Amino acid sequence: MDLTAFIRDVPDFPKPGIVFKDIAPLIADRAAFRVAIEQLACPYRAAPVDLVVGIEARGFIFGAALALELGAGFVPIRKPGKLPSATISAEYELEYGTDSMEIHTDAIAEGQKIALVDDLLATGGTMAAACQLVSALKGEIAGLSFVIELTFLHGREKLGDWPIHALIRY
Amino acid sequence: MDLTAFIRDVPDFPKPGIVFKDIAPLIADRAAFRVAIEQLACPYRAAPVDLVVGIEARGFIFGAALALELGAGFVPIRKPGKLPSATISAEYELEYGTDSMEIHTDAIAEGQKIALVDDLLATGGTMAAACQLVSALKGEIAGLSFVIELTFLHGREKLGDWPIHALIRY
Repeated sequence: MDLTAFIRDVPDFPKPGIVFKDIAPLIADRAAFRVAIEQLACPYRAAPVDLVVGIEARGFIFGAALALELGAGFVPIRKPGKLPSATISAEYELEYGTDSMEIHTDAIAEGQKIALVDDLLATGGTMAAACQLVSALKGEIAGLSFVIELTFLHGREKLGDWPIHALIRY
Repeated sequence: MDLTAFIRDVPDFPKPGIVFKDIAPLIADRAAFRVAIEQLACPYRAAPVDLVVGIEARGFIFGAALALELGAGFVPIRKPGKLPSATISAEYELEYGTDSMEIHTDAIAEGQKIALVDDLLATGGTMAAACQLVSALKGEIAGLSFVIELTFLHGREKLGDWPIHALIRY
């Protein structure tokens, strides 16, 4: 199945000149959604992970389904102020300024094997911050998985030596 | 399995006097997460749905995993300005003021059978607005599913005659 057929180009979103890669048709199609999750799961079949960590908000969609598929638990990384219990946070750069993300301090036990998931690898800043959080909790990163990679933004260069998996590359 | 053992009480969140029911331990536990998704799926086994609609953000976690489990597609209802293509929106009341949510106008075809999912049924305002969106697109609501229901807030009274399913009731 060609998953690119289920990605919709939306011009001028979120602002003029940007062509947004919309995953809505992919997740709405039962067969494409299943294939995407199976392909995301593939790298972790031989060496199972304990937890899938997903980044708010589209990372929750793929990450939670992947966790179910792999028989793993799911841990959310959220925008500031959303997680109720004790957290640690990491900053990442936006085009103008910075933002931050949080994870519960007790979300990961030392040495647990972790797959991190987000829908899109663009500049890599978001995932780099997520890796920083997982590493701070002494999780062992098994891989970084994306549905889409925008290769011309060279996000991989920010992501160290961890295995990176992307279903669709532009 | 007693799923209530995986719900953590967090006092004074999001503000003093409120005891927040945190689902983080439930989703982080591989066995509890699987049981929760299987229980959410149960009412839809006999009469399959086409789509699971999940409400941002915790509704994405349970909704996407449920969609995978049921072999259905997944459609997100999001906060304003997050969906890239054409949308319709619905307002709902907050304690002070109102907020709104959006769905893509082409997310649902007329007559498609829909399960709506969120983590928590509190006052019912959020889910009522979500039902309004699904109905506006002429989706056929098969059921409303929650992980937790706070019965003392009487949210069911806002949700008409649709079947309501909750795994845990307080």
